[in-house]
Amino acid sequence: MTPGTIHGVGLGPGSPDLMSVRADRLVRGARHVAYFRKAGRAGRARGIVEGMLRPDVIEIAMEYPVTTEIPLDDPAYNQTLSSFYSEITSRLADLAHAGEDVVVLCEGDPFFYGSFMHLYTRLRDSVPIKIVPAITGMSAAWTATGIPVTWGDDVLSVLLGTMSEDELTRRMADADAIVVMKVGRNLPKVRAALGRAGKLDRAWLVECASMAAERAVPLAEAGDRTVPYFSIVIVHGQGRRP
Amino acid sequence: MTPGTIHGVGLGPGSPDLMSVRADRLVRGARHVAYFRKAGRAGRARGIVEGMLRPDVIEIAMEYPVTTEIPLDDPAYNQTLSSFYSEITSRLADLAHAGEDVVVLCEGDPFFYGSFMHLYTRLRDSVPIKIVPAITGMSAAWTATGIPVTWGDDVLSVLLGTMSEDELTRRMADADAIVVMKVGRNLPKVRAALGRAGKLDRAWLVECASMAAERAVPLAEAGDRTVPYFSIVIVHGQGRRP
Repeated sequence: MTPGTIHGVGLGPGSPDLMSVRADRLVRGARHVAYFRKAGRAGRARGIVEGMLRPDVIEIAMEYPVTTEIPLDDPAYNQTLSSFYSEITSRLADLAHAGEDVVVLCEGDPFFYGSFMHLYTRLRDSVPIKIVPAITGMSAAWTATGIPVTWGDDVLSVLLGTMSEDELTRRMADADAIVVMKVGRNLPKVRAALGRAGKLDRAWLVECASMAAERAVPLAEAGDRTVPYFSIVIVHGQGRRP
Repeated sequence: MTPGTIHGVGLGPGSPDLMSVRADRLVRGARHVAYFRKAGRAGRARGIVEGMLRPDVIEIAMEYPVTTEIPLDDPAYNQTLSSFYSEITSRLADLAHAGEDVVVLCEGDPFFYGSFMHLYTRLRDSVPIKIVPAITGMSAAWTATGIPVTWGDDVLSVLLGTMSEDELTRRMADADAIVVMKVGRNLPKVRAALGRAGKLDRAWLVECASMAAERAVPLAEAGDRTVPYFSIVIVHGQGRRP
């Protein structure tokens, strides 16, 4: 039997019409659609394709066993996630070996800080697997600010809100344009680092880029609210321009 | 009269089906389509949409007056480009003021090292203007390597082949994952910097990502050929993974 293909399909930043034409076609045609979600939640990736799936679609909800209960540096964290990924991998591989194609829905771009990468590395030696790249959340975020992010020879640094304040500060000071991903509860730390790097007055905070709830404001005007985990901070480059 | 809208539409990395659904719809429906090209060439952006335009489309080819004849640091370079952008801007603004929508075709993502930004900053205060973000060339490039680019807390640095070898080396040594844009004739310098930063053996060279001529190889196996200007070098991050 010819094995089926596992498609890791990037859905982009959230607006359904920012999916690529290729992704749109794969999602609408898929018999088997898999996606990650937190237990008890509808799932962000699944939400993006609402109304697009075939009537006879078979959905595979891959529910994370843990997200915040175990500290990242506890070996139990890795062990729990690792067994979860192995279990999911077997299920998808069984479908492919039975000749079925599976579309795995991926928020953003699959190879850029994506969850699908953990399945990909476990599957790629045993079944056919294809990746559809997508518009990243950061592209939607800088677009939402209404200001181009990189000019001429600007260096862009993509940082994570989970990094230490010292490390954030050092890297922010050394960058031309900056994207900070995974901001969420790390916003006070990100703000402090931007201040120490002398770039707070140029920073923007973007929530829910490309979606109905999109909000892009200068960080100095953002106040001290709690922001979603996927919020992004942008500092635009100031490079050469005629 | 209600003014028309100038749409800066990102076309993505080159494969037509990697355009977003929104971009695809705008391109197919547009009466006025503008694009940059070198004098005497068909134009890369125009090539991506071949076969998609309305039969009665009005095309506006914006031909660069200069690209390589004048050195970047000669004031004449900026002056020549600046008058070119002003002239184009007037033409597009006239159309918008006459109530016409215009789709400007942009390779890659418009706000990420894009040429359209130079029109955008000149137009945004006088006419309605909307941006459609897109899949970047770098997303297509790391997808082409078949290896995820960033994991966990990996820092991604986007560098330019036009930077000095010392600066490239310093920034490469300090990054987890690396993208080098605008490689082209700078490949020998980029290779030397990667060697000095101790990352040459992990680097990949990607040409024509997502297109029929796509080629992704470890840089060490790439030989000394001349590569296209838009070639991209990728070094994948090695961050945390369960």
